[in-house]
Amino acid sequence: MDAQSSFRDVLIQSGHLISTGIDGLYGRGRIFEEIVSGLEAQVTEAGRQDGAEVMRFPPAIARQDFEISGYMKSFPDLAGTIHSFCGDERAHQRLICEMVDGNDWTSQQKATDLVLTPAACYPLYPVVARRGNLAPEGHLVDVYSYCFRHEPSLDPARMQMFRQREYVRLGTAEQVLEFRETWLRRGREIVERLLLPMEIDIANDPFFGRAGRLMSDAQREQRLKFELLVPVNDATKPTACVSFNYHMDHFGEAWNLHDWEGRLAHTACVGFGMERLTLALLRHHGTDISGWPRELRTLFWGNA
Amino acid sequence: MDAQSSFRDVLIQSGHLISTGIDGLYGRGRIFEEIVSGLEAQVTEAGRQDGAEVMRFPPAIARQDFEISGYMKSFPDLAGTIHSFCGDERAHQRLICEMVDGNDWTSQQKATDLVLTPAACYPLYPVVARRGNLAPEGHLVDVYSYCFRHEPSLDPARMQMFRQREYVRLGTAEQVLEFRETWLRRGREIVERLLLPMEIDIANDPFFGRAGRLMSDAQREQRLKFELLVPVNDATKPTACVSFNYHMDHFGEAWNLHDWEGRLAHTACVGFGMERLTLALLRHHGTDISGWPRELRTLFWGNA
Repeated sequence: MDAQSSFRDVLIQSGHLISTGIDGLYGRGRIFEEIVSGLEAQVTEAGRQDGAEVMRFPPAIARQDFEISGYMKSFPDLAGTIHSFCGDERAHQRLICEMVDGNDWTSQQKATDLVLTPAACYPLYPVVARRGNLAPEGHLVDVYSYCFRHEPSLDPARMQMFRQREYVRLGTAEQVLEFRETWLRRGREIVERLLLPMEIDIANDPFFGRAGRLMSDAQREQRLKFELLVPVNDATKPTACVSFNYHMDHFGEAWNLHDWEGRLAHTACVGFGMERLTLALLRHHGTDISGWPRELRTLFWGNA
Repeated sequence: MDAQSSFRDVLIQSGHLISTGIDGLYGRGRIFEEIVSGLEAQVTEAGRQDGAEVMRFPPAIARQDFEISGYMKSFPDLAGTIHSFCGDERAHQRLICEMVDGNDWTSQQKATDLVLTPAACYPLYPVVARRGNLAPEGHLVDVYSYCFRHEPSLDPARMQMFRQREYVRLGTAEQVLEFRETWLRRGREIVERLLLPMEIDIANDPFFGRAGRLMSDAQREQRLKFELLVPVNDATKPTACVSFNYHMDHFGEAWNLHDWEGRLAHTACVGFGMERLTLALLRHHGTDISGWPRELRTLFWGNA
């Protein structure tokens, strides 16, 4: 299992992943989904006492909100816009002819008002901003969503569509930094309970192009992003399974989010990569769950 | 609450739906999601004895499989293709300029290999077909997915992104028709337990254009589609909350699916519209769940 493709093959042969013929797009079997549900319960339990507001969005956001976010400046290659056919019956005839002839029929497709959600927290900022200034204690939101990133890869830990479970804190710099500290601890505790090897390190987002390298350097210098890494596909290049992000007032400025005193709000989020954590468990404890340590089987499937 | 928009307003004011500014795209609050989970458990319980294979796909399918399905012939206006930016840094500069000037920046986006899932069962047919001929007893699959349909509407029961919980039967005509009969009964029983008014009627899919009207007529004549309807937004035009579909050998032919004797496989599916059923419950039993009948509160939240 040295090559990236071979862990993927094992996952497919054992029925945990279902091949769709597209790199990075997989169906999942029952056990895989039970592990995802169990992880979700762990994250919920860790945050229960905080009383976060639960928001669940479908995997798309309004294009206008997406444009405001600045995502296309930083990660244009990863975004997925949703396009539809808007023509009449004649245009439809042409489309079908293109399809039959094996030509590109997608050039007629027009952009809709929707863009695929790039990270689970994006849809909530404009919603919270429309409510007016934050309360003195700020706000805390619990989100869970499919996300899309256009990065076809043989690495099963780099999917094009995957689920992120996040908590998002909005408030003053002090409030959101304290939140991030709390979750750095809780994230480590959760992954310790999963009996997985880990390290936590400073990280950067994959900003696009040469200007992007400057952004990445600045992000690292300012210690804005930490990742909890677990070896999944490659022992020498562990995979980020949880990330802890301080956005400063980037989203506050983009969406006009203000704290109770009218200053730009700061935000931070902790995001759990549900597929990546599941893959880490299958990698370290085996694809046959009957061989997992007893405490883990109890954690996920009770005492049955 | 006579106009379509007013039930929507009530849902937003009561926190069940969260406005995104886009018609048909809503976030959901905690209670709404708890109802969805409870419904999912009901459907799972009704089918438990059958031992269906669980498959969970992300909300997109391979474009090639989508093309083969024939969806663009029948419902071109509803599909959503996923497009991405594939250019270099110069192209990125142009894109950002278009964005800053308020021009259409999406014309540079190129179609990816992915299309949004139009109905929860679409991804499974090519997967099952690649395994070879079906067994003599055929096959049964349990799927649950977000689906996309490009039909912005003020009617909260007509969302652009919504969840379908489906069982799909593949086999001989006799096998799949028997499955549909069984689920016509089970669907009715589930909705009876939800204490909702209902009727079951012959239906048709919204085929595109004038030729589409002939398709709709043929579908009705052959009694291929039934719907379980509950009044949600409009008492005179009840909403399809569950559908029972016999595809004959349409998908068998499209994806080369064969039964154990090598004949084209027939398929049928039952699909539960999770958002629509939840809206029906909120409409008939009230948006304040403390006023729901006690047996329903027990069904969804136990005896707590």
